[in-house]
Amino acid sequence: MDFDLIREVVIPNESKIVLLVMDGLGGLPHPKTRRTELETADIPHLDRLAEDGICGLVQHVGVGITPGSGPGHLSLFGYDPLRYRIGRGALEAVGIDFDLGPRDVAARGNFCTVDEGGRVVDRRAGRIDTDTCARLCAELRSIELRPETDQPMAEAGAELFVEPVREHRFLVVLRGDGVSDALSETDPQREGVPPLEVRAESPGAEATAALVRSFVEQARERLRQHHPANMVLLRGFAKPPDMPQFPEVFGLRAAAIAYYPMYRGLAKLAGMTALPAGPSLSDSLASLRENWGRFDFFFVHFKGTDSAGEDGDFHRKVQRLEEVDAFIPDLLALEPEVVMVTGDHSTPSTYRAHSWHPVPFVLRSRWGQPDRAGAFNESVCQQGSLGVFPATEVMPLAMAHAGRFTKYGA
Amino acid sequence: MDFDLIREVVIPNESKIVLLVMDGLGGLPHPKTRRTELETADIPHLDRLAEDGICGLVQHVGVGITPGSGPGHLSLFGYDPLRYRIGRGALEAVGIDFDLGPRDVAARGNFCTVDEGGRVVDRRAGRIDTDTCARLCAELRSIELRPETDQPMAEAGAELFVEPVREHRFLVVLRGDGVSDALSETDPQREGVPPLEVRAESPGAEATAALVRSFVEQARERLRQHHPANMVLLRGFAKPPDMPQFPEVFGLRAAAIAYYPMYRGLAKLAGMTALPAGPSLSDSLASLRENWGRFDFFFVHFKGTDSAGEDGDFHRKVQRLEEVDAFIPDLLALEPEVVMVTGDHSTPSTYRAHSWHPVPFVLRSRWGQPDRAGAFNESVCQQGSLGVFPATEVMPLAMAHAGRFTKYGA
Repeated sequence: MDFDLIREVVIPNESKIVLLVMDGLGGLPHPKTRRTELETADIPHLDRLAEDGICGLVQHVGVGITPGSGPGHLSLFGYDPLRYRIGRGALEAVGIDFDLGPRDVAARGNFCTVDEGGRVVDRRAGRIDTDTCARLCAELRSIELRPETDQPMAEAGAELFVEPVREHRFLVVLRGDGVSDALSETDPQREGVPPLEVRAESPGAEATAALVRSFVEQARERLRQHHPANMVLLRGFAKPPDMPQFPEVFGLRAAAIAYYPMYRGLAKLAGMTALPAGPSLSDSLASLRENWGRFDFFFVHFKGTDSAGEDGDFHRKVQRLEEVDAFIPDLLALEPEVVMVTGDHSTPSTYRAHSWHPVPFVLRSRWGQPDRAGAFNESVCQQGSLGVFPATEVMPLAMAHAGRFTKYGA
Repeated sequence: MDFDLIREVVIPNESKIVLLVMDGLGGLPHPKTRRTELETADIPHLDRLAEDGICGLVQHVGVGITPGSGPGHLSLFGYDPLRYRIGRGALEAVGIDFDLGPRDVAARGNFCTVDEGGRVVDRRAGRIDTDTCARLCAELRSIELRPETDQPMAEAGAELFVEPVREHRFLVVLRGDGVSDALSETDPQREGVPPLEVRAESPGAEATAALVRSFVEQARERLRQHHPANMVLLRGFAKPPDMPQFPEVFGLRAAAIAYYPMYRGLAKLAGMTALPAGPSLSDSLASLRENWGRFDFFFVHFKGTDSAGEDGDFHRKVQRLEEVDAFIPDLLALEPEVVMVTGDHSTPSTYRAHSWHPVPFVLRSRWGQPDRAGAFNESVCQQGSLGVFPATEVMPLAMAHAGRFTKYGA
């Protein structure tokens, strides 16, 4: 939905909205029982929510399109995932809790191995351990960027950040006025050839390209003695997306309770405030209770369902669902005007990966038009009044049921 | 749907189409019985219509968006409600049966009270009664506009209309070539400050702004002795929307039978002919019978359902539904090829206001693909073959079932 239309009808009130996202929620039937994880789990409180609320299946990007975590969440927050795209470098930054700003361009880095001729012989430097990665990043962090050109921006200089991610992976961020992400990758994507030289893909990116070349050349010098991690490859140059901010668009003081940096980071990109979070649901509940008065909207993220699905562990995913179910009464005790439970994508245990299947959704409010869905699972939610519907409609639904939209037109 | 596509496939025939709009039709369950107004009412003829016809729930503007009466009706007539917008002044004109034309700009007026210093002390002039309002409007009607500038349009002059609405509210219309609605409001929206001077918000609006200033200054003089209604405030300047006309787009001789001026006016803006209408359904039926041969399409409006919903009177809304039900056999006796029954928005009695909930819809024709919906209410219509669907699809459905659309492409 058009943000201008939303801004036009938004009105303030005192209501609270909670969006609980179970990562990778949707599933597929177990080959033996022919029941999905949700159909197998004992989840009386979620079923009751479905009985009282309005249900459907959420489609995040489009028919048959498997959402990554970025589009999976941004679409639930109301952003058209085809318009607001998070580049790979920016997502890497978000995933390690790096606060990316509008003057930043981020890239994914790999430590790699090159031979005496400078040809890449191992694109992952034998998957060095994360401690080594951190030590080498500290070494690179002190590089002073000396661009060979005299581009005005280059003269003004740019700040450099180099942060370890995991094993051979790290993050590079250049911060400065006018930095551009219109840059080609240096990773040749195969072995036996030298790294590529970074090229500006638009005239305005020349200065940034010069800074990156300066970084790469100095990195080569400093890493020479650190075989197998004796060179770097960079790809996915990206600035943070230029997104309208969620609190401004919806007129909500918005908070995120997410233990994993990736999800916290996505919420922060949208302008939400990150609140303390721990690995368990009781941590989330404590944070929710403590901050209840300070915010209007709470995004609560639960990771366990996705991890179990990715591991192909049907039984563990069922357990995770039951854990969330036990948390629902405490959530409802806070008496939010609108409670929504859904996922950012499906991760069926049998499929062991993100999938394109639309994801169960329930919204409970005193103003819901009742529907026939009386249980929280894939086949029953599909019979709900929302049918299969786009994720970008989730926030407008929440706002309407919270009384936060006025009439359109007289 | 694109009007060009519609024009391309329209063909003429002798069929009749009736669209019966029950204002504010949709409802929510009664807290005790858990049944909606429609589920409570004894409406055998409407239920039979649903059994014989195709059903769904209409969404007029978008998910979660509560339609005003303007977008609620225009979308049923086939107009994209986000594209064809009726400004507040134009809607005020429509609401008192003022025939607004393309050379008109209309504004909502308030009589207000100002102190000796010219500061607004009561934006509603103590809510003077409607008779007083009418007397003061007659006084203002004789103003001769004398713009202080020598703008060409101003020289040519503009005709002035001042019409009472209710209590302190009135309508001002300027009629002339090249009038513009790009004008700022004079209502400061608070007390203790003088009215604002009208400003042109585009260069082409300077002449109109000069005319408005001339009106306001003379109104101040003439009202000086009429405390508490000793000044005017103007807002919502609007020309009628530039809309393709319904009879031209659909190739239909189209008539409206609506007792309330607002709905009659909306139909007239779309190019329909207003037929005589009275407060009761038997009046509507008489008008329908009398004009049956002269038109192809009839929009029949019934207000009672909305009024009962707005008053929070569940029982009265049920009664109104039963009244409409009793009228259905007489309507069917006219043997229209297509009969449709729906609403312009929901007005649940428990909510006491327009709401965003999609609205039951039925279309009966001998060419309907049967569906499972066998009763006319929110939850059963939801199970119909149309599901939740946009109001702009109502007219294409009607045209197709009336045999008035030919094949697209060879």
